[in-house]
Amino acid sequence: MTATNRQFHLASRPTGEPSVDNFRLVESPIPELADGEVLVRHHFLSLDPYMRGRMNDAKSYVAPQPLDAVMQGGTVGVVAASRSAQYAEGDTVASHGGWQEYGVYDPSKPGQLHKIDTARIPLSAYLGAVGMPGITAWYGLLKIIQPKAGHTVVVSAAAGAVGSAVGQLAKRAGARAVGIAGGAEKCRIVTEEFGFDACVDYREHGDVKSLARALKAVCPDGIDGDFENVGGMVLDAVMFNANPFSRVALCGMISGYNGTPIPMAAPQLLLTNRMTIEGFIVREHIDIWPAALADMGALVATGALKYRETIAEGIESAPEAFLGLLKGRNVGKQLVRLV
Amino acid sequence: MTATNRQFHLASRPTGEPSVDNFRLVESPIPELADGEVLVRHHFLSLDPYMRGRMNDAKSYVAPQPLDAVMQGGTVGVVAASRSAQYAEGDTVASHGGWQEYGVYDPSKPGQLHKIDTARIPLSAYLGAVGMPGITAWYGLLKIIQPKAGHTVVVSAAAGAVGSAVGQLAKRAGARAVGIAGGAEKCRIVTEEFGFDACVDYREHGDVKSLARALKAVCPDGIDGDFENVGGMVLDAVMFNANPFSRVALCGMISGYNGTPIPMAAPQLLLTNRMTIEGFIVREHIDIWPAALADMGALVATGALKYRETIAEGIESAPEAFLGLLKGRNVGKQLVRLV
Repeated sequence: MTATNRQFHLASRPTGEPSVDNFRLVESPIPELADGEVLVRHHFLSLDPYMRGRMNDAKSYVAPQPLDAVMQGGTVGVVAASRSAQYAEGDTVASHGGWQEYGVYDPSKPGQLHKIDTARIPLSAYLGAVGMPGITAWYGLLKIIQPKAGHTVVVSAAAGAVGSAVGQLAKRAGARAVGIAGGAEKCRIVTEEFGFDACVDYREHGDVKSLARALKAVCPDGIDGDFENVGGMVLDAVMFNANPFSRVALCGMISGYNGTPIPMAAPQLLLTNRMTIEGFIVREHIDIWPAALADMGALVATGALKYRETIAEGIESAPEAFLGLLKGRNVGKQLVRLV
Repeated sequence: MTATNRQFHLASRPTGEPSVDNFRLVESPIPELADGEVLVRHHFLSLDPYMRGRMNDAKSYVAPQPLDAVMQGGTVGVVAASRSAQYAEGDTVASHGGWQEYGVYDPSKPGQLHKIDTARIPLSAYLGAVGMPGITAWYGLLKIIQPKAGHTVVVSAAAGAVGSAVGQLAKRAGARAVGIAGGAEKCRIVTEEFGFDACVDYREHGDVKSLARALKAVCPDGIDGDFENVGGMVLDAVMFNANPFSRVALCGMISGYNGTPIPMAAPQLLLTNRMTIEGFIVREHIDIWPAALADMGALVATGALKYRETIAEGIESAPEAFLGLLKGRNVGKQLVRLV
């Protein structure tokens, strides 16, 4: 074990598109454990789009990431040392440890740390399909969209960690799943690996009319549900194909994260189609986490649900990997491997 | 009884703002009743904003009004002649008779005609607070917004038939009611007669920032619920003051009815504030009509719920009165008195 912990701090807040200069690599000694504390060697660090919003000092659905402090985020790892009776060296754990190689936890504080079983589910999956992204997919699809057999459900960012799970859950509910993704290769993965019925490459469409036409071609019966990760032109194009009583689970609007928010072109469709649109953040619905984790865990353990990971190597790769995530360079869950 | 029935047909579809030239007055003899039919002398004709949407040959939440046919709409009146065992001359009835002095009905067809009790509720109120507008207010407020004690509920077009009922129902639910209306006199009526806690005159505000500031001043704890009749800048200004988990019942968007639909300025607020926005049309929720009518009828009969009417005289005044309604010239329910 090295005696040094490497971590990334937020050095400055971006104006517009973030850059690697917004992050600072900091080395510090691993602190001595106090009585009751646990030292975890993080094996994987989760990178998620929500982190972009937190880099701004603005009102958002999560409090801002503090400057000059460790970038916050989900982690999985192995207990390296323990002065707690609840944890032993070698235990596999999930935690919210942030962008650093080691974390010190006090298990007596709720939500700090929990043990995970890697017998049938890989460690890294607890940051993806059996973690926050998977639960996000489960909640938005089953609790907000509520698909019925024969419905058409559209998912943007369909090749991502959340989107890929949404489409597969929609298929399991008897719906037709249509993805929107950036690039031919992602669309191939969405249909061939994740089993969506169709996928539209939004990069082939320069304006909302063109994208709306492409969606119409693969959604001949209109759109009943939309799991929205992108917003902007993508949401507009979906709305132009929305059926009466269609439902939108608004999970993210990554298209507007770096600049001026993008207006909604045709809000009157919310009225004429009696649509429901609901913004949500899954951390606020912890009552459903146990059920969602049980479902997603069973699906991953049995191989019934596929997922992909894009893995960057080493803590020093975290900023570039995060910027790549915001540009859609990843497929599936974006992780940083630390061990 | 005159042997002539006067009615307005839709003569042409408007491009942009409608005019009286879009309507044609047609005189025709009152037809002989067939066996089982009922002739009703309409006493009041209802004018409603939804009729504007129906004048377009466009996809909307109701089918287009046919050209060269009687303008459709709600009516109340008195049975003038009957060849049905269910109805007798002198019965007071509500019906969907349209812009005409007389209507012939077949009571064996469901939804054509129903008897109303005018002992404690005035005939005309069945087109307002105890009719479709009142049920609209009841459904949107209680089923979509679901106000809680201490919440702040904002209502646009607050001096109108629907808005005035929404605010009073919100107060009864223990919420703070804030209206938005056009003009100082309407705002006075909204607070003094309808008992809202505050009212903002949107005509005093040239842009969304100014309107949003004015709303903030009278909603110091933010906005938890919005009953939206107007859309455009009004909805935008509400959204800039929306609280987390706030709910919007989207009932109308009259600001965009005559021209190009108005974009929603800041849809990202739906996400950051985890808002729910739901478009609805009350005709599609007939399961709640009996409960809503019972509630609203009791409130009107006991004087607990106030309402206003703007009454135009004679069938020939219907087109001008309708255009006035679209411009917000009415206070409360816009009616045409035919008898």
